[in-house]
Amino acid sequence: MKYDIIVIGSGPGGYVAAIRAAQLGFSTAVIEREELGGICLNWGCIPTKALLKSAQAMHYAHRAAEFGFAAENIRPDLEKIVSRSREVSATMNKGIGYLFKKNGVTLIKGTGRVLSGKSVEVTSEEGVTVFEAERIILATGSHPASLPFAPIDGKKIISYRQALVPQTLPKSLAVIGSGAIGSELAFFYRSLGVEVTLIEFLPQILPVEDEDVSAQVSRSFRKMGMKVMVSSSVKSVDTSSDLCCLKVDTKRGEETVYAEQVLSAAGVRPNTDGIGLEELGVEMTKGKVVVDEAYRTNVEGLFAIGDIIATPALAHVASAEAVCCVEGIAGLSPKRVNYDNIPGCTYISPEVASVGMTEKKAKELGLNFKVGKFPFTASGKAVAAGARDGFVKLVIDADTDLVRGAHLVGDNVSEMIAGIVVARNLGAKASDIMNSVFPHPTMSEAIMEAAAASHNEAIHI
Amino acid sequence: MKYDIIVIGSGPGGYVAAIRAAQLGFSTAVIEREELGGICLNWGCIPTKALLKSAQAMHYAHRAAEFGFAAENIRPDLEKIVSRSREVSATMNKGIGYLFKKNGVTLIKGTGRVLSGKSVEVTSEEGVTVFEAERIILATGSHPASLPFAPIDGKKIISYRQALVPQTLPKSLAVIGSGAIGSELAFFYRSLGVEVTLIEFLPQILPVEDEDVSAQVSRSFRKMGMKVMVSSSVKSVDTSSDLCCLKVDTKRGEETVYAEQVLSAAGVRPNTDGIGLEELGVEMTKGKVVVDEAYRTNVEGLFAIGDIIATPALAHVASAEAVCCVEGIAGLSPKRVNYDNIPGCTYISPEVASVGMTEKKAKELGLNFKVGKFPFTASGKAVAAGARDGFVKLVIDADTDLVRGAHLVGDNVSEMIAGIVVARNLGAKASDIMNSVFPHPTMSEAIMEAAAASHNEAIHI
Repeated sequence: MKYDIIVIGSGPGGYVAAIRAAQLGFSTAVIEREELGGICLNWGCIPTKALLKSAQAMHYAHRAAEFGFAAENIRPDLEKIVSRSREVSATMNKGIGYLFKKNGVTLIKGTGRVLSGKSVEVTSEEGVTVFEAERIILATGSHPASLPFAPIDGKKIISYRQALVPQTLPKSLAVIGSGAIGSELAFFYRSLGVEVTLIEFLPQILPVEDEDVSAQVSRSFRKMGMKVMVSSSVKSVDTSSDLCCLKVDTKRGEETVYAEQVLSAAGVRPNTDGIGLEELGVEMTKGKVVVDEAYRTNVEGLFAIGDIIATPALAHVASAEAVCCVEGIAGLSPKRVNYDNIPGCTYISPEVASVGMTEKKAKELGLNFKVGKFPFTASGKAVAAGARDGFVKLVIDADTDLVRGAHLVGDNVSEMIAGIVVARNLGAKASDIMNSVFPHPTMSEAIMEAAAASHNEAIHI
Repeated sequence: MKYDIIVIGSGPGGYVAAIRAAQLGFSTAVIEREELGGICLNWGCIPTKALLKSAQAMHYAHRAAEFGFAAENIRPDLEKIVSRSREVSATMNKGIGYLFKKNGVTLIKGTGRVLSGKSVEVTSEEGVTVFEAERIILATGSHPASLPFAPIDGKKIISYRQALVPQTLPKSLAVIGSGAIGSELAFFYRSLGVEVTLIEFLPQILPVEDEDVSAQVSRSFRKMGMKVMVSSSVKSVDTSSDLCCLKVDTKRGEETVYAEQVLSAAGVRPNTDGIGLEELGVEMTKGKVVVDEAYRTNVEGLFAIGDIIATPALAHVASAEAVCCVEGIAGLSPKRVNYDNIPGCTYISPEVASVGMTEKKAKELGLNFKVGKFPFTASGKAVAAGARDGFVKLVIDADTDLVRGAHLVGDNVSEMIAGIVVARNLGAKASDIMNSVFPHPTMSEAIMEAAAASHNEAIHI
């Protein structure tokens, strides 16, 4: 059987590529070795959000007295929390299956390996089959990085895979790495009462975020009883006793951390092994596939998108690349993905959402900039919602008034950041935000006030 | 004492006008007869949001089993819910006081009455004093309309004022009027277990919203056990017995509704009586003060903003008019308030947020338009959050691709709508939204998908 397009991998890069390809009239097949939807849908974005929502709902119950109601004997039901999370993933997973059927996308189960830019070998329980296509899109995603001194054994040293489906809660957990995954899981386990130590090699947790955001999250994490260590390098993990023993180099010298389990959350590695890249001579740099602006590799007919190329390893980036890649193949002139305008969210409490330049980056670049900041303590909606923690911080170009960066921490900010992304794509200046009528009372008004603050015109501070 | 600017009323129109005036160097005073912050802050937007947050938090506790935790004996503590709401208002109220001090705004307690465009008489416990100013800004706001057949007595027939501070809950409540105020309070009382009948004169509840939005809210309200009556005209309310007896004309003939209390939520009336307008010959139309594009009345020196002029009676409109009015007085060239781009929110569950043209309006105007719609059932974040009710609906100009209207119903949509407002002010087309990278997983992605749906390019439906 020959297809117009074969996509390897059905994560948010692969399945979006396949659906868009089918919409454009291409006969399309997707090769997937595990569950439809990839890591994002089955072991990443989606099931974590389900777990975190359970934690949030329980937080509200714990705050009953504050909000004016009674609730007794509040206690988590771990099995139910986990099974709900799995059901959410299963629902979305079935949804992708439905979308494939609706759009006429063929699903090929098995492990793909490219033989050329036009042929791919699939190994499954039924054996090995070769499929042909005019184009092949690699969207194989990534897997958890394993630290040399803390090899993931799935029991004492776990990755997000195991952390998402605990059968029992450890009494204590050391989390190595404080990016979105490490921070979200640290928050979730702490919410369920686990003693959590979050260990970050760099000088701040959530290293890609603005320093003020990181400081706010550190305060929140410490307030909930988490131990947060920065500028701390794990040297060894001894798993030979009941408690794992971590030796950690810190600015104060070597410290020892004991924990029943260790979560390794030190980033992800692209899935580039065993899929035929080397044999085919696919050009790679630093372990990632090299592509041009249309996501073409150096091999005729072979494209690559998502976590295996050197763009941010985020689900929404993969999806955007998928659409752009497929529309390019179709001869349309898709708008290129604007990599300067990619938002990122961390779904802890308070949430973190950001896009564009941090204040530190603006300084490093020598940009002539202003900062507009507005705290949620001064927001009527935040006070009414019992959600005073956090702020909106905008980095504004002092010469052009353009919004160079937006850094939000607070309740539901993940739902606010897209508005700034769209506005930035339309060339938004601080004045454009100030001159828009934001609905009252919302926490989003803080964006308007932060813009006004950059002009020294904020009303509510 | 003579001021540059005197503002009458300290609601979201008045206090914002005063603060902005002070920022611009004007000596400024505000005359207020009640609490700082006006209705919005003391008896409207803010205390309702506090009550509704209590209801929301309790909802989460009631949904404990679904989210995977136990919580027993959940029951509202009305006194605490109300006192928390009052504390929230008090906090914000103190905040305005702080902002006045910080900006050097003088607060004059008492009831103001304009004598000319440059002088105002203030009556307080201390007597009557006349203050002079170069300009006077009227921002006196509004009060609940009282229906002739259901005069508000504050006991059996109440307005939002009494509804915000119940000492005990009625067993049953009839709500006349299903605008934002009526719907929010109906939702709140129903959340606490009160038998609620919501009665709307027009053919749909939330009459200003898109028909699909109204239909969704009707379903949600009925699901929670509320009785919803549309195209229903209350003819009389008999309060002589223990239960109020409402005679209601409906399409099925006259029906009788019994309820312990009746909430009159049939809109608001401008506060234009007794403030000197008639004596001064201020031009009025349909009970509202006539102003030009700079908010000037026909009387030299006298300006008017907010609920007393014929623009939408919304807090954020008053605040926007305040800034525009004062900047105009200062000789700046403020951007005019774009009345085609005013968002509105209703904080029920699921929330409602909208801006611009409804589908019905687009039809009436004969616009060549497309609709893009995306349901939250297909959103991974919504499924993970247990918030599948609702959708995003965009009305897109088929000729220009411009976003003419946005109608959202779902969790936290009030925090999403501002992004669409800003984008619309920047001339956003559906394609601009589609080509922006929205963070995954968020419910805001439904906006991107709805835009794509208008081009038949949605991925997830």
